[in-house]
Amino acid sequence: MSRKGILFVISGPSGVGKGTLRGKLMETPDEGLIYSISATTRKPRPGEIEGRDYFFTDAETFESLIASGELLEWAVVYNNYYGTPKKFVLDNLEKGIDVLLEIDIQGALKIKNAFPDGVFIFILPPSVEELGKRLNARGKDSQLEIERRLACYEQEIAHLHQYDYAVVNDNVLDAVDKIRAIITAERCRVRRMQ
Amino acid sequence: MSRKGILFVISGPSGVGKGTLRGKLMETPDEGLIYSISATTRKPRPGEIEGRDYFFTDAETFESLIASGELLEWAVVYNNYYGTPKKFVLDNLEKGIDVLLEIDIQGALKIKNAFPDGVFIFILPPSVEELGKRLNARGKDSQLEIERRLACYEQEIAHLHQYDYAVVNDNVLDAVDKIRAIITAERCRVRRMQ
Repeated sequence: MSRKGILFVISGPSGVGKGTLRGKLMETPDEGLIYSISATTRKPRPGEIEGRDYFFTDAETFESLIASGELLEWAVVYNNYYGTPKKFVLDNLEKGIDVLLEIDIQGALKIKNAFPDGVFIFILPPSVEELGKRLNARGKDSQLEIERRLACYEQEIAHLHQYDYAVVNDNVLDAVDKIRAIITAERCRVRRMQ
Repeated sequence: MSRKGILFVISGPSGVGKGTLRGKLMETPDEGLIYSISATTRKPRPGEIEGRDYFFTDAETFESLIASGELLEWAVVYNNYYGTPKKFVLDNLEKGIDVLLEIDIQGALKIKNAFPDGVFIFILPPSVEELGKRLNARGKDSQLEIERRLACYEQEIAHLHQYDYAVVNDNVLDAVDKIRAIITAERCRVRRMQ
């Protein structure tokens, strides 16, 4: 059965654990699914690897990617650029390979305009309090930045209805199982078949 | 999170293995999912148990259920009545418990009219040849009946586009995993949440 690839988008508020879930998900080999690495100007966090987690770049290079139309979407999130290289995503979908994006909410909504057929998964924290705790525990953001992120959360959750699925990240393995189930189910959708 | 139950309908051509998949699926306990037992006038097959696989009944009793409006849908399939008792399904959905039906294609399409929000899963054989083999191997139908069933298959497959999902039953465990993934995914759907 030949079909185009499906675009899966994992998104949600900052600190919810999107990156952890995506990393865990990609640990189990799935030949039909490939992760689209984002470009960013933010500094690598401990443990993050260039070309696996992100393409880390400077603002000047990033702006030249924008200028030459090489990004599917880009956004400024907490004073850093984030963007999705276009060619990689389009080439794989064309070959029938499913592509996974892990992006912030602004980016996901832009992608939804361009790919209404994509599968949009919103990762929810068990509660706002828990989100605050996680941002603190991560120890990667200043107190001011954490407060800014929590303030954004209320606005971000308002976009939930634009997503197809919601997965609460109360337990990493449970949440990954749910994301995997969503991927399996979407591959069985009649409307995606020829 | 309180929500209404989801109606899951497993359906497909005769001989495709719907009953085997349903039986296997229900072996793993899932508190939130209950199987709706159909009523039928066909004779029990070896191994089938009254009140677990079907409510076996005679034509007269079945016709009184029809007359008193106690069936959600009913159909005559290969000269036997099959039907879905209404109260059981409605009560459980109201309580927020998901309900699983396993019915023929005629029945599924009637249910779809009444429950457009239900989840309709079409079970496909790996091929028509394989379907013929399985009907023969089952040894429960006369040669004439097998030919009648295969002739129906072409008409039945034309209804595939009215279903949400298609699962090929090439391997029972794989097919059950896919059905389970569909159930998990549908429970994560944003549009089903309050």
